[in-house]
Amino acid sequence: MTSELECLAARLREFARVREWEQFHTPKNLAMALAGEVGELVAEFQWLTAEESASPDRETLDRMRTELADVTLYLVRLADVLGVDLMAAAQAKLEDNDRRYDAERYRGSARKAPPSGP
Amino acid sequence: MTSELECLAARLREFARVREWEQFHTPKNLAMALAGEVGELVAEFQWLTAEESASPDRETLDRMRTELADVTLYLVRLADVLGVDLMAAAQAKLEDNDRRYDAERYRGSARKAPPSGP
Amino acid sequence: MTSELECLAARLREFARVREWEQFHTPKNLAMALAGEVGELVAEFQWLTAEESASPDRETLDRMRTELADVTLYLVRLADVLGVDLMAAAQAKLEDNDRRYDAERYRGSARKAPPSGP
Amino acid sequence: MTSELECLAARLREFARVREWEQFHTPKNLAMALAGEVGELVAEFQWLTAEESASPDRETLDRMRTELADVTLYLVRLADVLGVDLMAAAQAKLEDNDRRYDAERYRGSARKAPPSGP
Repeated sequence: MTSELECLAARLREFARVREWEQFHTPKNLAMALAGEVGELVAEFQWLTAEESASPDRETLDRMRTELADVTLYLVRLADVLGVDLMAAAQAKLEDNDRRYDAERYRGSARKAPPSGP
Repeated sequence: MTSELECLAARLREFARVREWEQFHTPKNLAMALAGEVGELVAEFQWLTAEESASPDRETLDRMRTELADVTLYLVRLADVLGVDLMAAAQAKLEDNDRRYDAERYRGSARKAPPSGP
Repeated sequence: MTSELECLAARLREFARVREWEQFHTPKNLAMALAGEVGELVAEFQWLTAEESASPDRETLDRMRTELADVTLYLVRLADVLGVDLMAAAQAKLEDNDRRYDAERYRGSARKAPPSGP
Repeated sequence: MTSELECLAARLREFARVREWEQFHTPKNLAMALAGEVGELVAEFQWLTAEESASPDRETLDRMRTELADVTLYLVRLADVLGVDLMAAAQAKLEDNDRRYDAERYRGSARKAPPSGP
């Protein structure tokens, strides 16, 4: 059975192939493209308060959705050219985090969390 | 039917809930956390040539996989708190790109591509 | 007269030269290194409220200072290898912004500002 | 004597004051704005080879210069609202790097360098 992420990766592979863009799609270049798109996504949030960011107006949310889509496309494409199973990697990391951040110990606190948490 | 991304989003929701981390998980904060993780991912590629980036040694690839996982976790969590269907958004954007970048016209060229392409 | 930024650029040039690191310091690679350091800087702020970010404790401020320094070093180095006069470019852009964002019209509002403002 | 960076910081302070933008210029928001601009800068390099990045055509270099300027403006502004002396911090970090990366040991090698080097 092919998962939805594998399916998206296959479509992106075909998208690049028919345009002969594989030559540009090195992991290094795709990592940069991903960083560029995340920069655009972050920019959507930069002047919003925490509260405003949680209830964006429709127009702002549409732009956020588009940026989230761009990030997803490059992330899936990058994982694909590296031969990384993104879903398996994410699930493994989540299980790792689950062990690492004991619920009791880290409850309600970002302070005690290591740099990469919460 | 629940998709694998929806399932991952649900697990992340529960992960945050039991730790009472929802208070930290505003869209604004999650966008920053995503940017931080993408920074770590990019750093893995910074001194590699294009060729080296395409055939990383096992240790480097392991680190890349971990960073890709971190990026995925925050991306899925951010989309979830915003109520965005990530897969639908990505598919819509891919179809949009497919129309926008005519295969004939953009074949083999990053030059002719707009800033966001290829 | 040599400015302080030109002086720092010269020191970084020498730093790279004696280590034979010029081969790694292509503009592309340095742009990635800059992005990586900015990711680390952003991570320092990700779980802080706006208020907390404005009065970090000493330890946090020390880490922020170190990250700001790393960003500055790569920014100055990147401008240098590209032959860009960073101070002249920044001053020109500030004058451009001064004309573009009329004080009356944009007073107190991030809403009316274009994507790149305020 | 006021240095050129202090002078630029003072001009940015005035720029924000007359527009009543200080309310938006929290360290957290400025860190995000900086990340957004670095994303735009990185995007200029994403499809270029290492060689192409070292000899951009005039139009590309103009865009790079503008992005470098934007990054500089937000970096200087962020350091200013945090009360950090950017030049002193950068010089201290460079001296630290000079001790940490022994010229003999790290000569010509990115391999031996820690994640943050060369």
